[in-house]
Order: sequence, then structure tokens, then C-alpha cells
Amino acid sequence: MRSHRCGELTESQLDQEVDLCGWTHRRRDHGGVIFIDLRDREGLVQVVFDPDYADAFKLAESVRSEYVLKVHGKVRSRPAGTENPNLGTGKVEVLATQLEILNKAETPPFPLESEVEVSEETRLRYRYIDLRRPAMQQKLRMRRDITRSLRGFMDANGFWEIETPFLTKATPEGARDYLVPSRTHPNHFFALPQSPQLYKQLLMVSGLDRYYQVVRCFRDEDLRADRQPEFTQLDIETSFMDQDAITDLMEEMIRALFKEVLDAELPNPFPRMTYAEAMRDYGSDKPDLRVPFKLVDVADLLTTCEFKVFAGAAKDPEGRVAALRLPKGAELSRKELDDLAAFVAIYGAKGLAYIKVTDRATGIEGLQSPIVKFLPPEAVLAILDRVGAETGDVVFFGADKAKIVSEALGALRIKLGHERGFAEGEWKPLWVVDFPMFEWDDKDGRWFAMHHPFTAPKCGVEELKADPGKALSKGYDMVLNGTEIGGGSVRIHRQDMQDVVFKLLGIEDEEAQQKFGFLLTALKYGAPPHGGIAFGLDRLVMLMSGANSIREVMAFPKTQSAWCPMIDAPAPVTDMQLRELGIKLRKPPEAKGEAN
Amino acid sequence: MRSHRCGELTESQLDQEVDLCGWTHRRRDHGGVIFIDLRDREGLVQVVFDPDYADAFKLAESVRSEYVLKVHGKVRSRPAGTENPNLGTGKVEVLATQLEILNKAETPPFPLESEVEVSEETRLRYRYIDLRRPAMQQKLRMRRDITRSLRGFMDANGFWEIETPFLTKATPEGARDYLVPSRTHPNHFFALPQSPQLYKQLLMVSGLDRYYQVVRCFRDEDLRADRQPEFTQLDIETSFMDQDAITDLMEEMIRALFKEVLDAELPNPFPRMTYAEAMRDYGSDKPDLRVPFKLVDVADLLTTCEFKVFAGAAKDPEGRVAALRLPKGAELSRKELDDLAAFVAIYGAKGLAYIKVTDRATGIEGLQSPIVKFLPPEAVLAILDRVGAETGDVVFFGADKAKIVSEALGALRIKLGHERGFAEGEWKPLWVVDFPMFEWDDKDGRWFAMHHPFTAPKCGVEELKADPGKALSKGYDMVLNGTEIGGGSVRIHRQDMQDVVFKLLGIEDEEAQQKFGFLLTALKYGAPPHGGIAFGLDRLVMLMSGANSIREVMAFPKTQSAWCPMIDAPAPVTDMQLRELGIKLRKPPEAKGEAN
Repeated sequence: MRSHRCGELTESQLDQEVDLCGWTHRRRDHGGVIFIDLRDREGLVQVVFDPDYADAFKLAESVRSEYVLKVHGKVRSRPAGTENPNLGTGKVEVLATQLEILNKAETPPFPLESEVEVSEETRLRYRYIDLRRPAMQQKLRMRRDITRSLRGFMDANGFWEIETPFLTKATPEGARDYLVPSRTHPNHFFALPQSPQLYKQLLMVSGLDRYYQVVRCFRDEDLRADRQPEFTQLDIETSFMDQDAITDLMEEMIRALFKEVLDAELPNPFPRMTYAEAMRDYGSDKPDLRVPFKLVDVADLLTTCEFKVFAGAAKDPEGRVAALRLPKGAELSRKELDDLAAFVAIYGAKGLAYIKVTDRATGIEGLQSPIVKFLPPEAVLAILDRVGAETGDVVFFGADKAKIVSEALGALRIKLGHERGFAEGEWKPLWVVDFPMFEWDDKDGRWFAMHHPFTAPKCGVEELKADPGKALSKGYDMVLNGTEIGGGSVRIHRQDMQDVVFKLLGIEDEEAQQKFGFLLTALKYGAPPHGGIAFGLDRLVMLMSGANSIREVMAFPKTQSAWCPMIDAPAPVTDMQLRELGIKLRKPPEAKGEAN
Repeated sequence: MRSHRCGELTESQLDQEVDLCGWTHRRRDHGGVIFIDLRDREGLVQVVFDPDYADAFKLAESVRSEYVLKVHGKVRSRPAGTENPNLGTGKVEVLATQLEILNKAETPPFPLESEVEVSEETRLRYRYIDLRRPAMQQKLRMRRDITRSLRGFMDANGFWEIETPFLTKATPEGARDYLVPSRTHPNHFFALPQSPQLYKQLLMVSGLDRYYQVVRCFRDEDLRADRQPEFTQLDIETSFMDQDAITDLMEEMIRALFKEVLDAELPNPFPRMTYAEAMRDYGSDKPDLRVPFKLVDVADLLTTCEFKVFAGAAKDPEGRVAALRLPKGAELSRKELDDLAAFVAIYGAKGLAYIKVTDRATGIEGLQSPIVKFLPPEAVLAILDRVGAETGDVVFFGADKAKIVSEALGALRIKLGHERGFAEGEWKPLWVVDFPMFEWDDKDGRWFAMHHPFTAPKCGVEELKADPGKALSKGYDMVLNGTEIGGGSVRIHRQDMQDVVFKLLGIEDEEAQQKFGFLLTALKYGAPPHGGIAFGLDRLVMLMSGANSIREVMAFPKTQSAWCPMIDAPAPVTDMQLRELGIKLRKPPEAKGEAN
């Protein structure tokens, strides 16, 4: 139906007869001539209707926004002075000799040209209109480019794309599963996978050596923050590679991706940071290295001071006292400082002590602070030296249980770093490694796996049993600009170790057998050393495309309540359907008391 | 951990030190030396343990089948006369100097070397063992190759891979949906997609021009024949291409695929056959063109004969009398003929009349048949002429309603053609086109869509309304060797036409609005002419790899009752989970009467 796409025309088609199809982006009547900007996926081109071609001209008069047109005409140079340098096709236009209206269009529910004042619900309801915006199409194009680049790397490195089931059983990630009632096995349910974790490990036991899949995963979580009920992973597993070999290969893939899609150079190698270092310096296991300032421990300078908040935390083996220097922060107003104190309170901090350095040259005299008077002057000066404070800076303090201090100052660091322009325009990837195997949960009084229960420890069975809290894992997270974009581990490949880990996690044998028995059995039959990683594709595309939300890089996302306004899903179903599945609805909420 | 894969070693690595990892495929002790065939995804290599390297030799003595090993050694030529020409690595062996046992293995539940006498349930329960068989890995490798070839073609032709949701609403295919209860919207359910049909049409309305996706689809059907609850489609949609342009491009893709993966040449172009021709000549809308014989209409020769079964059907406007000549079929025994009569009875045929041609030269005398005596000799001879019967052939007859005759003789044609070796070793693709828009269902007294309700007719609105039964659609099926591997259509892109089709199908406005309202709305806002196709990837891989079942080309298939013996899914869930989802189980079957 067409010889070219609209956005592809350049001077190299001059004087050619072309057929174009596309949407009416804009129509202008000017000097007895009609101009239509015709739009397709590749861009816009100006089409001119002249009364000399009477049929086409007459029809063009009836054309409205978003009408779908087929145009036959000749490419010519735009008259001097009317070129549009902002348009790929801006040096040419098409003089139309024939026009066909392929379809009419009602006025769209919102204009395509700007995103202003359109609610997200409206955009999602008319997603097929929203997706006509060139900016949206560019994001989907970049998503396609990214996926293709990643696949290409995987293919070139001997990874086979292998599909795993969606109708499966509860997986170990521990979030809530989406369930699918089985009709043929009444009272039984499939779970949609939170990841193909167990299947990919079984593929390694099968000797398939290297596997990958670009695969949908599902979590029925409350959609705070930027989550979606279904999301896409690049899921990878390999046999016979140790942790360094895996992380080396994976960062090579990401470097190649950024080079290919964004022409950006990432560091080689990526920095590696232990979990302990990350928490110490950045108060986070996903540090944004673009922000140039760090948390600095100062407890050793404050154990003997009279200020109880500091001294108490300094002496508590589980406490932490840390300082965070914000360059040029002395200009912060009282109101701003109060707001920051309220911000850290979200993370459990009971206040936000600070010292403004109005004049570093005059020692204690040059400081402005509600706390300096409680601290020994030599300690204050030693702290300023240690954090490298200069005139015009502010230094914040956290003193509490280590977890609270790290989280609060870590979050403050990110907030200030981003708000004050320290986090723009650079790519700062790193690996975080040496995670603890387990985290102790005081409330439940038991260990939890920090990655998942299949992650291998760096130590042997006996050492692990002797002091589980000390054990580090062979887990690794790839972090980019403060976002975790990939996480993985070397897995346990011996049954005895897997048994021990399940026991430490309080997964009793029967439960382990019922949930993961097939994996334990599989480990008996010759499992190779193996490990892998999963990258969050949506998040990666979001970062690379500069989008504000993963919803912007998915064709048909859902709202925060997991609802699709466009197709209106989820929806009621018939009683017949429920009957076939052997389930029924609990009574509606108002009659809740009667439900059994 | 390794320098090469086992199966990759050739004489070009002679005298190199190599590190290999793999599974113990076979161990033999012979002449004071231990031979281990070490296996990985790429193949086997012979490793030799000599007592000269005492540590490795001693350890090798403890090695059993399927132990996972790491071997260091030197590649050398096999001694003259011990080369194995059946093995890629058969000219070399590795003299091991170091051995590490990476993991032990219990004796596998079934031997890997042959498929004999292992039940499919056992194979599925220990799928990770089953997948170690080289034959299984070859099928997954070919699946990978096929997918990659198809993606490559799509990418090269401007199709964008775009992901569509899995948590969606009932789609129009009409099979039973898998449902997913929503927790955040009580009493509402998502449906898993039977296809991304509506989403891909909306992507065209979005102006995304060309889309594809290798995508999982779900149908909760009774798994007769070779079906799976989840299966994979190559799903495609394009704008601004008419039927011929689409089918031309799609067959080009399939030709490129067969060339690339199998080095096979498919015809160019594929033959095109109308639905009417296919039913007439092959009694099937997916004819296997490898079988060289056809159904031949003979009603015109039999309208006046005394044999009521023939004459009745010949005179019935909805009847059909057809003959099928089986070359060299005169040797069929009475028992075999009875079995064939029982076979066609499955399709509703009341019997299977036949004429054996024992001597074509002697006219009626040379025939052997229970029916010839009821037929005018000149009609019999005319039939034999028309079907081209020769001495030694048998000619079968069907006389009944056209549907029964076509289906019965069509199935008989396939059965005999396959059993008697007429259908081997060739690739015979074709397009079947010009399907009727609608099929009349006597039982329900209404029209059904032969493809789906979004398929465009070849005629205009008025003509369609005037005689729906005559209307042909712009649907097309790609058929290969008797299997439909792809099906698609040009879609309706105007709202008025879509309204009319919904009305003819008895989908009233309110229902249409509720089910497909978003599509009807979308068609108002400037939908381009568009169409597409979906290929059944599992089936295509099955055909190309010569597998007997789609279960053989899926890594983790389910049984006929939609059960996975390996992970034991579906499984019971907790009452807490059901409560959160706002559903409960109906009473167990034995208390059925009490359920409300």
C-alpha cells in the first residue's frame, strides 16, 4: 500500500513518486493550499494539497485530526526559507496528486502533542491513543533495541533460550502468588511464577549448560512505589562458572548494551563493593555512586562526650554514629532543615543534628549548630577534619541503632544528592557482593535468607552451622545509579548443603519436601556447580530511556490497584465458570460476618 | 572452570592441555586403564585414566554413572583402529592428569541411553534426567534455532517485538479461559490470554505499524490429542498491508526458516487453495499434499441409479457422493476393509463401499465389490475412468451429507496415505484461503465466525448483510504436511463493519460493549487497515524436528490432565490464601448435593 514510511523521506527521494500511509497529525490551510503533516512510526512529513489536483484537494478539505490517509504524490524540495530543521524530513515535502481516506477519526479524548493535564487513568483508558505520541513510541523502540541487544549477547555466548511454564507452583521468593484454579484437579491451584528460579536450576541439572529467557513474572503485591503485577526479567543461569566468571560476563553484557543502544561507555571493570562497605559508606545496599558524598563513622570521637544521644549510640555495640557532609549546604533554611528532620523520621531517626560551617577558618566560632555546645570542641574539629568540611557546608549526624542511622542518612544522602543536582547525566554501575547469608528477624525469632534459600554460602557446611550470622553468600547485585537492576548468586549444588540451609531457615523436612522436594531430589542425581542472575528489564529500560516510571516503558500497564482501565480487567465472571472450577465467591464484604 | 566443551574437541586441539566439565556417560575398565565418556551439551569425549597418574586414576575408580567431573588432561589421537566415526570427537581422546568430582549421583531412575520402556509419567517426573538425553537436547536446540531465525526475519522486516499483558480479560477465541482471582478487586477475575489478538489490534490503532511477539497463550481445554494448557505462538500484526502482501511476506519467512535451520527448499510461491477446493479435493481444510490421491466427485454419474444410498445423496443439495482411489489397494483383506469401515464410522459415515480393481482390462468382470451389482455398468466404468483406477487399485466411496463424506473420506485419505508410506520426507506447504465468513450451527440456530469476529469479509457491508452464508473472509491458514501451522486474517478496521458482524453473530450491542467495547471505541479514533497471523511454535518445532508430540519439544510439559508430575502442580493452597482472594472451595464431590 505504500512505497516509503512518512518519517523516512529525505532529499534522496527528490522527484520520486511515493505512496504514503499514516495519520493526520496536523492540517493547516494557508494561501489557498492545504498542508497536512502525515505521521507514522518513523516520523512526520509535510504533504501539500494544491487546487490543481482538484479531487485530492477537495477530499483533503474534509480531513480532520487523526484521519488515516493514503497519499500518492511526488517528493520535492521545500521552498527556500520553509525548511524545518527540527524534522528529519524537514527539507522536503510531498505534493499530493491522489488522496484516499482509509479511515475517519473522532476527535481524540486528549491532544497528542503535549502530556500536560491528562490524568494517568485517562491515558491508560485510551492507551492506544497515548501510544501514538512519538515519545511513547520511542520508549517502546528502545525497549525493543535493549531486548535485542541482550538476546544477541546471550546467543553469542552459548546461552540457549528455553521456555519454562507459567502454570506452576509456589516459588521461593516469598511474595504473594497469583493463583489459577485447576478445573481438572478440583481444589488444586497453579501459581503464576514469581521467577523461573527452580526451573532454571533444573535445566542446569539437565546439562543444558547455559540458559536464558526474557520472561514474564508475577507478584501479587500491594503496588506501592513503582511496581507492576506482571513484569519482565532477563533470566539467566549457567553451569561451571564461578562467581567472578559470572559477574565478569554479565557486566560485559551490560557494557555492550549501553554502547550499542546509548553509545555510552561504562567502566571496565565495574567497581565491586561488599555489602558491609555499601552500608558503611552509603547506608544502602544499592548505592547511587553519582552522589559524591558518603557517610562517615565518627563514633570513636564521641564515646566520652556528654551528649547522651551520641555517646549512647557510640558505646552501643549495635549502635552507630555517622556524619554526612553536604557541600554548600549551609544555606539551608530553618524550614528546610525541619523538613529534612521530618524526612529522616520516616526511617526511624529521632532527630537530625547538624553543624553549619559558616567559616571553617575560625574553628568552633565559625559554626552554627544546636549541638556543638554539648560536644568537646576537639571532637567537633576532628569530625570536621574527617568529613572534609569546608566553609559553606553543612554536616548532618545520625546516632541510633546502626540500621536506623544507615537507612536514615542513606536516604538523606540520596534525597539531597538528587535535589541538589549531584546525580545527573552519568552512569555509575557497581556490583554489591558478600551479602550475609541470613538476616535475623527479631519479631519471628528466626533466620531469613537474604537472597533466597538456594544461594550458596562462601563457607563450608560445618562453618555455616557453627555461626550462620557470620556466613557470607555468593550473591551479587548489579546496581546502577542507585537502582538494583540485576541480582543473582551461585547456587547450592549439593544436597547436604541444601538440607542444612533449609534447616537453618526453619524449613522442616516435610515442608521442604512438599515445596521443593523435586529440587532436593534433582540435586541427588548429579547437579553441576551453577549460578545465575535475573535483570529487571522494565527497570533497565526505564533508566536507559529516562522514563519516570516503569509504566511508561510497558505497552499496557496496570494502575496501582492492578486494574486496566482500557479493557476493564479484572472483570466479573459467570457462575458457570466458577462452578466448573469448583470455587465460589465468599459473601460480599457487607455480609462478611456470615461467611464461614 | 573449563577451557572447552566436551563435544567440541577435534584434532585441532591435539597436544593441548584442556579442562573439561561434564557428566559421566559411561565408564569402562579395560586393560588396566579406565575409560570415561564425558558428556556435556555439545557431545561426548573419551577420557583415559592411566595408573601413571595415580591420584586421578584412584579417584576415577570411584566414579559412577552421571557423576559430575572436572578433568584436566592432554588431547591426543586415539590409537589406530580405535577411532569412533560416529562421534564428533571420535578421532581424539583426553589423557587425564587431574580429576575432581564436582558432584556425585545416585543411579538415575532410568537409563539415558534408550527410550525403551520408560513411561511418559516417569520421564516427566524426572524431566531433568530425561532432558539429559542428547536427542531431547537436540530438540530444544532446534527450538532455539527456529525461534532465533523467526525473530531475525521479523526484526529485519521492521516488526517490533512488543510485550502484551498476561493478566487480561476473556478473549474472543471462545475456548475456556484460565482465570486468576484478583485480590485487590474482590469478586473479579483476570483471564490468561488465549492469544494477544485484541492487544495487537490496538497496537495497530496506536500506529506501531508492525508488531510481533513470541508469546505464551493459555487454553483450559480437555487435552485430547496433542494439546497443552499453555503453548507458544509467534504472534504477528501489521498495518497497511493487504492479504497478498501479508501471505507473501509470511511464506518468505517460513522459506527462510527452513533454509536456515534444515537447509530445505520450500516452494516459491506456496500454492494457494480455496477452502472450497480443499474440502472438495481433500475433504479437509488442512490438506496433506504429500498424499498423492484426491477425493473425486461422482454424484453426477449416480443420480439415476437404483442404489438408494448413492442416488439419495447424489440428489440431495446438501449431499455428496465422492470416490477415493487408493493405488495398489486391491490387496486389502476383508478384515482390513472392515477396520476401515469402522474408522470412517467415527466421522459419521454409515459404511464404506468399495470397488477392487482386480483387472482393469476386463471391464465390470475385473471388479470385486459388494455394490457393483447395484450400479449401472456404464456409471461404474465412468467412475473408474474419472478416478484413473488401474489394475490393483481399490476405489472407496462416500455418500451422505457433504460434511460427513468430506470428513470421512478426508480422514481415510490421510490414514491410508500415511500408513502406506505416501507421506514421507517432503515438505508440502500451502495457503488455504477464501474461508466462509460464517458457519451455520443447526443446533444453536445461529451463525458462528469461522475465524474470529474481527476477520474482515471480502465483500462490503450491504452484501454481507444480504447473504451472510455466501460471504467469504480475508482469512488465511498456512498448512504444512496436513498440519495448520499458522492462521490469520485481514481484520475489520471500520466500526460500522464490526457492528454488523457482531450483530450477525448474535452478539448484542450491550454484550459487545461489555466484552469488546474498548476495541469498538478504538476503531472510532482512526484505525488503519491491518491484519496478521499467529504461528503455533510448538507444532512447527515438532514438525521440523520430527518429534511425535509437542510434549517432546517443550522443556517442561504437562500430562493430558494438565498436571506436572515433577513439581506436582497444581497443588492445594492454604485457606489464608483463598480468604485473601475472596473465594472458597465448593464442597468436595461426595457432598455435592449440599453445595449451594
